[in-house]
Amino acid sequence: MSQMYDTVSAIKVQGGSQPIMEKVVKDEEIELIANETLKRKFSISPDSLKEFAVGYLLGEGLIRSLENINEINIEDHTINVQVDMEDFDIIQELVVGSDCFGGWRQKIEFVNKVESEFTVDKETIINSFNRLKESARIWQETGGTHVAALIYKDKFLSREDVSRHVAVDKVIGAGLLEEVDFKNSFIIYSGRMPADMLIKIARVGIPVLASNAAPTTSGYAVAQEAGVCMLGFVRGDRFNIYSHAERILL
Amino acid sequence: MSQMYDTVSAIKVQGGSQPIMEKVVKDEEIELIANETLKRKFSISPDSLKEFAVGYLLGEGLIRSLENINEINIEDHTINVQVDMEDFDIIQELVVGSDCFGGWRQKIEFVNKVESEFTVDKETIINSFNRLKESARIWQETGGTHVAALIYKDKFLSREDVSRHVAVDKVIGAGLLEEVDFKNSFIIYSGRMPADMLIKIARVGIPVLASNAAPTTSGYAVAQEAGVCMLGFVRGDRFNIYSHAERILL
Repeated sequence: MSQMYDTVSAIKVQGGSQPIMEKVVKDEEIELIANETLKRKFSISPDSLKEFAVGYLLGEGLIRSLENINEINIEDHTINVQVDMEDFDIIQELVVGSDCFGGWRQKIEFVNKVESEFTVDKETIINSFNRLKESARIWQETGGTHVAALIYKDKFLSREDVSRHVAVDKVIGAGLLEEVDFKNSFIIYSGRMPADMLIKIARVGIPVLASNAAPTTSGYAVAQEAGVCMLGFVRGDRFNIYSHAERILL
Repeated sequence: MSQMYDTVSAIKVQGGSQPIMEKVVKDEEIELIANETLKRKFSISPDSLKEFAVGYLLGEGLIRSLENINEINIEDHTINVQVDMEDFDIIQELVVGSDCFGGWRQKIEFVNKVESEFTVDKETIINSFNRLKESARIWQETGGTHVAALIYKDKFLSREDVSRHVAVDKVIGAGLLEEVDFKNSFIIYSGRMPADMLIKIARVGIPVLASNAAPTTSGYAVAQEAGVCMLGFVRGDRFNIYSHAERILL
């Protein structure tokens, strides 16, 4: 598939002005079709599409494990998947029916509490963000992506995307494919933390979400309820803990 | 309506740790219903809802002027509008049918070129961003909003929102209510610039969009095509011009 950016001509203005070549991040339209009936379009950075597909399906509750996927076929800008779920029709209706800008109020009742004894120490959080920044190659080139990483034992699975949601879908998918034990893992990333993001994390069973950005009130409510430790404004050697502080060793 | 943030208890970690009270930006679910048939939900900062409604309707092409709005009724979390358009059914289908994450490929053919001789000098761009930062009060408190401003003659209409799209809808709406001549105005804001944002700007007829963030390839394509001058990475005294540089006086 195509690379992650195009190079375009632009004019750089600072004091004077000069023509330059600039790298601009690619966003392409990808359609995900499950069982020929559930169809969703995404504006996405065109890489790691298999990881995106399985991560999205898991995060939306359309599958419970890789065993529920009978087939994935990625061709050009279309991802066709066949999934095997008894209650697919009911779940499909929920996913399609909820608007992407605000479906979380319907969804919150379907989120279970994350059952995990996982803890992580503050140095690991701070060091992981340094590594996240280094791994964000497309962001370094274009300034136009979000970056996420799923951390489990010695694995550090990072992905970038123009969409903060898709960046997280991709690392969840990568984790599923590498058989990460989600309840002993955590996610760090570069976006804000509203309810739909916390619901996704909680549904997968991940006990800690950390970001260099801000939470919102809806995300705060879900994090409290779902047993997720939410960290915000991780910058340099500092951060805020908004929920379930017992998961952080200070 | 409720204020723009809640105050919650959190733990601040830096060296040691201490309990603090933190302001967290509110995001609430708002439903916009047009002519009882077109229904869309948004996760939004709950202020300037009238501006949001008229700006969204104009930016999506559901109205052409304030005269097309017969009634707006805002009650709690629902905005009911009655609009008067001959081709409402056709347009409604386009708006509802396109997914919010990637409907722009269907929409691009409906975007007209911005017809305007408008120019702006580089000092005005740089000074406007300083003023934008000062006006971003909720961002200063919470770190959780996007901010946009529409600038026309001596007007500087700025609004904040958890959604970058809604921040822009709100300033477009504010401009429409204050009878701004859009073709001699410009928008500055804090978000990235993909196609759907450029299509909105172009449809309203605004000739310049400037951001402190990055463009994407889809936004670049639309800006070129639609006659919009797109500026990115406006930071301190520098910026990049990606399209229609003739609109910037250097």
